[in-house]
Amino acid sequence: MKLALMDNLWVVVSTVLVFFMLGGFILLEAGSTRMKNAGHIAGKTIITAGIGSLVFWAVGYGFIYGEGNAIIGLSNFFYGDFSFSGEGLSPATDFMFQMMFALVSLTIAFGGFAERAKLSAYVIFAILFSAFIYPVIAHWIWGGGWLGEDGSQDFAGSTVVHLTGAMAALAATIVLKPRIGKYNKDGSSNEIAGHNQVFTALGVLILWVGWFGFNAGSTFGVADAFLGFVALNTQLAAAAGAIAAMFIAWAVTGKADVPTTLNGALAGLVAITASSGFVEPWAAVVIGIVGGLMVFYSMKFFDKARIDDPIFALSVHGTVGVWGTLSNGLFAVPELSTDIGWGQAGLFYGGGFTQLGVQILSVVASGIYAFVVSFIILKVMDKVMGGIRVTEEEEIIGLDLSEHGGYGYPENIPHPTEKNKAGA
Amino acid sequence: MKLALMDNLWVVVSTVLVFFMLGGFILLEAGSTRMKNAGHIAGKTIITAGIGSLVFWAVGYGFIYGEGNAIIGLSNFFYGDFSFSGEGLSPATDFMFQMMFALVSLTIAFGGFAERAKLSAYVIFAILFSAFIYPVIAHWIWGGGWLGEDGSQDFAGSTVVHLTGAMAALAATIVLKPRIGKYNKDGSSNEIAGHNQVFTALGVLILWVGWFGFNAGSTFGVADAFLGFVALNTQLAAAAGAIAAMFIAWAVTGKADVPTTLNGALAGLVAITASSGFVEPWAAVVIGIVGGLMVFYSMKFFDKARIDDPIFALSVHGTVGVWGTLSNGLFAVPELSTDIGWGQAGLFYGGGFTQLGVQILSVVASGIYAFVVSFIILKVMDKVMGGIRVTEEEEIIGLDLSEHGGYGYPENIPHPTEKNKAGA
Amino acid sequence: MKLALMDNLWVVVSTVLVFFMLGGFILLEAGSTRMKNAGHIAGKTIITAGIGSLVFWAVGYGFIYGEGNAIIGLSNFFYGDFSFSGEGLSPATDFMFQMMFALVSLTIAFGGFAERAKLSAYVIFAILFSAFIYPVIAHWIWGGGWLGEDGSQDFAGSTVVHLTGAMAALAATIVLKPRIGKYNKDGSSNEIAGHNQVFTALGVLILWVGWFGFNAGSTFGVADAFLGFVALNTQLAAAAGAIAAMFIAWAVTGKADVPTTLNGALAGLVAITASSGFVEPWAAVVIGIVGGLMVFYSMKFFDKARIDDPIFALSVHGTVGVWGTLSNGLFAVPELSTDIGWGQAGLFYGGGFTQLGVQILSVVASGIYAFVVSFIILKVMDKVMGGIRVTEEEEIIGLDLSEHGGYGYPENIPHPTEKNKAGA
Repeated sequence: MKLALMDNLWVVVSTVLVFFMLGGFILLEAGSTRMKNAGHIAGKTIITAGIGSLVFWAVGYGFIYGEGNAIIGLSNFFYGDFSFSGEGLSPATDFMFQMMFALVSLTIAFGGFAERAKLSAYVIFAILFSAFIYPVIAHWIWGGGWLGEDGSQDFAGSTVVHLTGAMAALAATIVLKPRIGKYNKDGSSNEIAGHNQVFTALGVLILWVGWFGFNAGSTFGVADAFLGFVALNTQLAAAAGAIAAMFIAWAVTGKADVPTTLNGALAGLVAITASSGFVEPWAAVVIGIVGGLMVFYSMKFFDKARIDDPIFALSVHGTVGVWGTLSNGLFAVPELSTDIGWGQAGLFYGGGFTQLGVQILSVVASGIYAFVVSFIILKVMDKVMGGIRVTEEEEIIGLDLSEHGGYGYPENIPHPTEKNKAGA
Repeated sequence: MKLALMDNLWVVVSTVLVFFMLGGFILLEAGSTRMKNAGHIAGKTIITAGIGSLVFWAVGYGFIYGEGNAIIGLSNFFYGDFSFSGEGLSPATDFMFQMMFALVSLTIAFGGFAERAKLSAYVIFAILFSAFIYPVIAHWIWGGGWLGEDGSQDFAGSTVVHLTGAMAALAATIVLKPRIGKYNKDGSSNEIAGHNQVFTALGVLILWVGWFGFNAGSTFGVADAFLGFVALNTQLAAAAGAIAAMFIAWAVTGKADVPTTLNGALAGLVAITASSGFVEPWAAVVIGIVGGLMVFYSMKFFDKARIDDPIFALSVHGTVGVWGTLSNGLFAVPELSTDIGWGQAGLFYGGGFTQLGVQILSVVASGIYAFVVSFIILKVMDKVMGGIRVTEEEEIIGLDLSEHGGYGYPENIPHPTEKNKAGA
Repeated sequence: MKLALMDNLWVVVSTVLVFFMLGGFILLEAGSTRMKNAGHIAGKTIITAGIGSLVFWAVGYGFIYGEGNAIIGLSNFFYGDFSFSGEGLSPATDFMFQMMFALVSLTIAFGGFAERAKLSAYVIFAILFSAFIYPVIAHWIWGGGWLGEDGSQDFAGSTVVHLTGAMAALAATIVLKPRIGKYNKDGSSNEIAGHNQVFTALGVLILWVGWFGFNAGSTFGVADAFLGFVALNTQLAAAAGAIAAMFIAWAVTGKADVPTTLNGALAGLVAITASSGFVEPWAAVVIGIVGGLMVFYSMKFFDKARIDDPIFALSVHGTVGVWGTLSNGLFAVPELSTDIGWGQAGLFYGGGFTQLGVQILSVVASGIYAFVVSFIILKVMDKVMGGIRVTEEEEIIGLDLSEHGGYGYPENIPHPTEKNKAGA
């Protein structure tokens, strides 16, 4: 029983750390966008966290972990258990930890809505995503569903949390279309710089801090003091991602620009999320470096493809989420996979292509489900709601005013220069 | 002994979380007020935390937990014990956790001073509140005093911490009078918007994070893994409060304004503070919803009553603090109250009106004591110090300059427009 | 084994808290400097944290804790151990905790680079400091080296972390020379105010929060619940430092200026770092007060000495780091030193001058090594790199543009007033 209490203690601490990541997202998203939308972006994060929590309580947890079938769980709705058997995690502890992952995935999804979606679209999509998108994939991989049965390795959610969120964001960017001023008639794009890099950098640091709960908390306890090892892999991948992204930007563009470097750190973190409990530290460094390089090229790719991704959610959480999930197929160590019965060792450890195949299946199935369902939902919403995007005028004056009735920085209203008139 | 060490570990972690709430208050208060006072507000929070810590060490802890009588404790001054019996919390661990609650209550009290009180008034009131106001009520309810003996249920301090702070804030708003420009001659009021909603939103998120230490730490340990359940109630109430406040504002005013939504989240947290260890999750949702609705109407009420409450401390911590305390009288579950000998079950669980009566007594006695003593202290200070409010000129140029000799944002000084000349 | 797991849990939590301190430094440094450099300062903190982590992994940890001699360790490079013996800390847990101290020391060092060093200088110095400066001193005192053998008492690193970083910062300020506009031809100095005191104050609060991991985590476990006592000393010293600095500034200059007060809190924290596990709470208060007074006069001293220290790293971490280390020689309690075999009791507890002598030796040896090696490295870099300082034009337009190619606050670019043209 005492060991179980220690496990509960650690998971509650990790829960708090993961929830703190929402503070990182507030800063990351507000800092990466314009002043006229800052109050809206910060405020909507609190709103969607509220909605996500209540929906997860009502049905989300039940769809993931309730008794059901290979596709979905079907019990434990409106969760209210305060019992504790003395073994493992208490129901409430487990519930809380799982809830936080759902909130993070939801917040990632809203990266694709930034600077142009109506507040009502946030409210409705938060409900639907938290009920019907995230829980399904979480059930498939973590809740006893068919991918988990196949041995899919996703330690803390490169696919379940990050890719799922990013696919919803992709659907949103497509349905919402680019922001006014982002693309010129000749097909070239303009940079719409975020308004506060201190916010962005602090946001990344806070996400990094919270990620220790995300990854090392996914041990679900203190057994073998394994949490320290997971934290080590997390740190090395994040560091390697930041440095790789900085150098590639410096080499290619001549400047180590701040947003790319910061996205490199996040890329390292997203990449190691699936593998932090399966690989060795040297592999964590490699995984982080590849993540950092990928995020740089992925950002370029989406920009050229005229997919407007203001907060780089598609690159950081999508492209790199795929890489993180696949990396297990390459680097998983036998002692941390085969020997304990959680999938197979990776290609580089004599496991052959078996695990890589399982990982590819996870990514493809989850990615398609999250994208298709999100796309359908958003298209229907767009029809029913008379558009999920604010009017052109509202977008130009900013969502602080249009959606909430007051500026986020009332003493610092952007001057109506030509640039702002053009909405840039 | 090992269990005791785990308890100590959890309470130290919770101590850190509660202390982090002061960072939330820095952002909440600075973000909710004007640029010209931002450096002052941030700086004074550090100053009053310093004073509060030293006074709590010198006399506060002794007044609460020292051996004494039903009214006050009278030993353990200038605390310095580094012993540990091997059972329960070490003296230092318990001391540190309790100190943080005193600091939070003090910080809430200063909400009522915002944008017009002299720095010297902060310094002196910090000493007196930390010595003679907070410790008395904490002794009454938690330190073996008469209300605790009566079975008053205040799990983590809706009354002890929040209502006490809010009553001191109320006394301050009355003694200090409204800010220049807040009320017009015809009795109508102007909105004096806070300058940075990103700060405000992040502040609320940090408070929410810290609240897990506040509430779940008030288990004083890991027994029965109960901490996870308390965290669950905390989360649900906060979420419900935010959403309820957002919808009522949207319905009544046509806009889901950001400050009201954020205050809704805080209202949910304040409300569940007293009851997080006594009620079921569905009740936490109800308690949060009621808190979120109350804070909206309470803000309107104080505005109409010409009580200028810049940071909404009276509504968030006062009005809702009362509701949180009373909610135990309605929703307390027998298994979490009667069966373990901490008061009675609530009205809806067959406990009748007994507990509700005790809760009302707690609120009335504590509220009156905190208000009356604060009011007397502030009136005397006002006399002795030649006023506790800065001059009209100082208020207009801002407290950064008048009280600290330099702007908080020296590169971003508010332009001396008509609006600023009017002090708005 | 269960006790060991608890120790691991606490040290991992402390690791996260110490890493969070980097967020405090982002805010402290960005807030204390000008808008035109804010994106750079925030971004470089992430970059140097990345480099520091990788170098520590590659060689730093091995130089400190590898098997070697009294001067340096020489094994455990490219660390990758995921074993756990069941006793004490797991290798990964210990590694992670130690890494964070190296990152903090590195971040302190860069205080001396602020607002004028090239990004490439940060990159190269981060590598060299993390490989050859910090690890040597950490080995001497904590890694089995000659100062530790002598009984040097540095509980959490007033010397190892703070003084080392500050000496590197001192070398940098000398090599880089003062910022444009800091000193006038007549030898008088101008105040170059930081641009955001809310950032600075929140940064201090976050550092304070993280410091509980720094100090109380340096217990390396939960034995005797000693962590709570260390946290208590930490809190009292920080509080005393803030108040002492506020009052001395108020008394001497007529204004309780915000930066001095905040530096007082940090001074209290730096001072108690060496002694938090060796002294009684009343002594912690005294140590904090002295630290708070010293930081005020030290800031004045460096300003007059024409040593331009934008973030006050020399005073906060250097001057006060020395005081903190020496304070053990005065206040160390026999029960917490002599009786457990870690050095001697201090002068005021009948230990005579023995421990004070050891402490002086630690400070002198470490200070000289850190300064001299940093100075040589920076001088060589200055030669080889064609200068480690940006050009005058780059300094005037700001490092956001010159080093990263984009403003940190693109919607809030400082107006090219006379003041800015002069670089101030």
